[in-house]
Amino acid sequence: MKSLVFSLVALLSLSTPSLSQTVWPKPQKLLEREDVYLIDLENFHFLLTPNSPQECAVVIRAFERYRSLILEGTTTCARPVPKKKTKLLGPILRSASETLSNITISFQSCEEEYPSTSMDERYTIHVGGVEGLTNVSANTAWGVLRAIETISQLVYPVQVEDTDRNGEFKQTLAINGTFILDYPRYSYRGILIDTSRHYIPVDVMKENLDAMSYNKFNVFHWHIVDDHSFPFVSKKFPQLSEKGSYDSETHVYTPEDVQDIINYARDRGIRVLPEFDTPGHSLAWKAQEGLLTTCYNTTTGLPDGTFGPVDPTKEENYHFLYELFSEVNQVFPDSYIHLGGDEVEFDCWKSNPQITKFMETKGIETYEELESFYLNTLINNISNLNMSYLVWQEVIDNGVEIDRESTIVNVWRWYTPEWPIEMENVTEKGYKVVLSAPWYLNYIHYGPDWRAYYDSEPEGFNGTAQQKALIVGGSACMWSEYVDGSGITPRLWPRASAVAERLWSDKRVNSTDEATPRIKRVQCLMQQRGLRVEPIDGPGFCLCDHAFK
Amino acid sequence: MKSLVFSLVALLSLSTPSLSQTVWPKPQKLLEREDVYLIDLENFHFLLTPNSPQECAVVIRAFERYRSLILEGTTTCARPVPKKKTKLLGPILRSASETLSNITISFQSCEEEYPSTSMDERYTIHVGGVEGLTNVSANTAWGVLRAIETISQLVYPVQVEDTDRNGEFKQTLAINGTFILDYPRYSYRGILIDTSRHYIPVDVMKENLDAMSYNKFNVFHWHIVDDHSFPFVSKKFPQLSEKGSYDSETHVYTPEDVQDIINYARDRGIRVLPEFDTPGHSLAWKAQEGLLTTCYNTTTGLPDGTFGPVDPTKEENYHFLYELFSEVNQVFPDSYIHLGGDEVEFDCWKSNPQITKFMETKGIETYEELESFYLNTLINNISNLNMSYLVWQEVIDNGVEIDRESTIVNVWRWYTPEWPIEMENVTEKGYKVVLSAPWYLNYIHYGPDWRAYYDSEPEGFNGTAQQKALIVGGSACMWSEYVDGSGITPRLWPRASAVAERLWSDKRVNSTDEATPRIKRVQCLMQQRGLRVEPIDGPGFCLCDHAFK
Repeated sequence: MKSLVFSLVALLSLSTPSLSQTVWPKPQKLLEREDVYLIDLENFHFLLTPNSPQECAVVIRAFERYRSLILEGTTTCARPVPKKKTKLLGPILRSASETLSNITISFQSCEEEYPSTSMDERYTIHVGGVEGLTNVSANTAWGVLRAIETISQLVYPVQVEDTDRNGEFKQTLAINGTFILDYPRYSYRGILIDTSRHYIPVDVMKENLDAMSYNKFNVFHWHIVDDHSFPFVSKKFPQLSEKGSYDSETHVYTPEDVQDIINYARDRGIRVLPEFDTPGHSLAWKAQEGLLTTCYNTTTGLPDGTFGPVDPTKEENYHFLYELFSEVNQVFPDSYIHLGGDEVEFDCWKSNPQITKFMETKGIETYEELESFYLNTLINNISNLNMSYLVWQEVIDNGVEIDRESTIVNVWRWYTPEWPIEMENVTEKGYKVVLSAPWYLNYIHYGPDWRAYYDSEPEGFNGTAQQKALIVGGSACMWSEYVDGSGITPRLWPRASAVAERLWSDKRVNSTDEATPRIKRVQCLMQQRGLRVEPIDGPGFCLCDHAFK
Repeated sequence: MKSLVFSLVALLSLSTPSLSQTVWPKPQKLLEREDVYLIDLENFHFLLTPNSPQECAVVIRAFERYRSLILEGTTTCARPVPKKKTKLLGPILRSASETLSNITISFQSCEEEYPSTSMDERYTIHVGGVEGLTNVSANTAWGVLRAIETISQLVYPVQVEDTDRNGEFKQTLAINGTFILDYPRYSYRGILIDTSRHYIPVDVMKENLDAMSYNKFNVFHWHIVDDHSFPFVSKKFPQLSEKGSYDSETHVYTPEDVQDIINYARDRGIRVLPEFDTPGHSLAWKAQEGLLTTCYNTTTGLPDGTFGPVDPTKEENYHFLYELFSEVNQVFPDSYIHLGGDEVEFDCWKSNPQITKFMETKGIETYEELESFYLNTLINNISNLNMSYLVWQEVIDNGVEIDRESTIVNVWRWYTPEWPIEMENVTEKGYKVVLSAPWYLNYIHYGPDWRAYYDSEPEGFNGTAQQKALIVGGSACMWSEYVDGSGITPRLWPRASAVAERLWSDKRVNSTDEATPRIKRVQCLMQQRGLRVEPIDGPGFCLCDHAFK
């Protein structure tokens, strides 16, 4: 089978665009040649060069995962349907340049145990060519992960003559001669999942981490607690989830669950960035006595039995938050934490006489200032934890001044002001920014709404080059008012794939027409790998859509 | 444990509304008393009275199914999560009126092997009361199916003292003293699933048949073929699916698959009503040569390579359709078939010179008349098959006259004219009608859109009582442009449950506020039984939503 004379004839039956052109998200530079290499299925493996770190666990586990994704995933459906005949896939390949059994991987550094804000995801791939080999090269383990995901998308099924059985064909895989140089446009490419409005099971989150890695996302923004429930089990304050979760046995994330998710994400080059939203969106923190503001009935002057945002007047609340955030800081390896700060409703603060008195004493004149006081006191208090922060845009809208070096502003409001204006404002003030506003995927629309997500250009606002350089990336958000584990995966994917390419690929990769067959392919690929992801661009089929149960 | 003195104390901790008030769809008459009966889990079974048919397979299989749904489904999640502790559910019950081990079922007739248009679904349930027993009474097996679904919704988990272990509690089930007299408002309560735009796997259809039975739907309108694919495997014309399906091995319904679905539906009291839509929506029938109209380029006067609706001028086409429909009639036991007839586009017919000539010869002046000619010829040709028909509204809008006894008009257009006007028109002409227009569930909206479905009243049009008596029922439609097996179940349910209650329950059951906690409960119940159905009314949780994988 080795070194057969190459012929292009059989390949003409391949559908266009050719497979390397369908990699999602589109690589920065990609050259595909006409030389075709067969994969030696029995001996196929990833081979580390001698000068690469040999014991890099993330890389070694990824080799195992991708070996099976490549060998099985591209030839059969991950959810087998036994009663149907298996049939041979792909075009007939009568001859190939060579047979490949190794993909050689070379990388420098396995120093970072967890992916970080400065993770280096750059990689190159040479398939065939002058060296006649398949070489992957990257600086870090994270680059290796991105490279082998790309390779898994370059490989395609073909049929070749079975030399053991005259005239019959057998299934194998092939890859075209290809050169790729690739790196992300933005360093922050996130998915927000809200596990407070509805609980999302750990297995379903892992499924979504898989999908994220197939789309080269690198930040899981875990909106873990909110008004509706507090599923995070704190070792220091177990009463928070005992009283604040929907069910303290079944609807919580234990320390082991959280560690499991962090490690699962790490293995896929994904940072886990938790959000503990205060001072608003914290009603489920009720187990911590005195934390929430007591709301008053303004007619009777008595407490009305309800609670509002965190009470910013009590020193013990800052002590509590220090203790909680220092635990969070220990649990989550990422240097960033999302502090929230959105949609703080002032009515309860206004109704509370102690708060009025406090403001008078401190000379605080507006509730925006009070929020600012709260946030600055919190941040000063936890400063020795050396964390960096994301905050929702209102924090800046309301005039809070925070350190520009360690803070990223998360722009989310798709309404007044419209996000391009907000992007202009926030970057004008010199803040780094992560854009989420056009990517609230919880809002659903009939039809191919992925196109609008794809068309949303982060730089699409009035501003200087300096301002635009402050864009760190973006994230798609799945708030869980109307989703739980039953349907979050098909609702997110492949709609979120549109965001993946916008954040990874070059700005000029911006044609929905060109993207359509490719996003359909990544949809089919994810289905083939066993994920429940749904069609988003009209009638049609995927190889494995018959295999859902 | 027998004949304990009854005490209401423990039951006060039950959440309101009480469980029998939450049956979905709401029974016609329901009286709940305060007497509570424990279920003897070890000996619980359904018992037939001696004068009931003893060998009625549908009933016997339903007993098995519901015995396990009641015993397991209400105490644990169908998808177990092994690592979580099982805990006892429900309020503590300190004493009960009596322990029940039997539910006695009495019914008259098991004559119909398959449910039909005249199926009798009426039933009564007495739990406790003067007789001190649980009795179900129905005329037919179909009534028994509806009754035991209701019973499965009346039973709820409680904790009782474990007499073997002092001071400890154990899990059991209870049911309140209840009287129910129930029957459907409409005899036709359907769900349309489109298996042409995307293929829907057999297992996923079965999952939806389960959900239908939990909601007392009784018609599966199988929109089996269309322009996009022809997955129905015909024994007489195997080339139709060979050439017309997305994949003739994996994306087809074999005769065994079809029989499997019919039987699965039959066991749940659900009719399977297939639609073979002609003369439009038939591009996937291309394997039958000459069937489709050749379209012409009007400038060159030559065929343009595309095809249009069925060619109504060729006698052999009617022969073919006769053969196909006689096979369909043999395969599907239902006396009704849906003939389609919607959205016939006339451009191709207009372009074709043979058609123009045919119209001249026959004195046919308009294309509406040509469509009418086609449909009448088809119906005359297949008249000896003794089928009854559903047709989409355009057939009547275009002035076709069909037998009013054997035809039901399916009103679907939610736009001009708005459906209440169309309902008025169609019933004024004396046609029976099935309403689908307000229930196109493939159109998705953010938020609790089930309320609009619930508010859509079939009688909400200007018309006489006689006209309103022509309403046979309604059906919710899931066209599959944007769904496949990955997400059709969470997209349909429990949104379709809103339609279920509208079609089963009394017209005066029309408050979305009153329905909200009940539709949430049926959502949780379906999840508990292992179905992927999604939240539709804002944040919250179900007992089993943590168990999705």
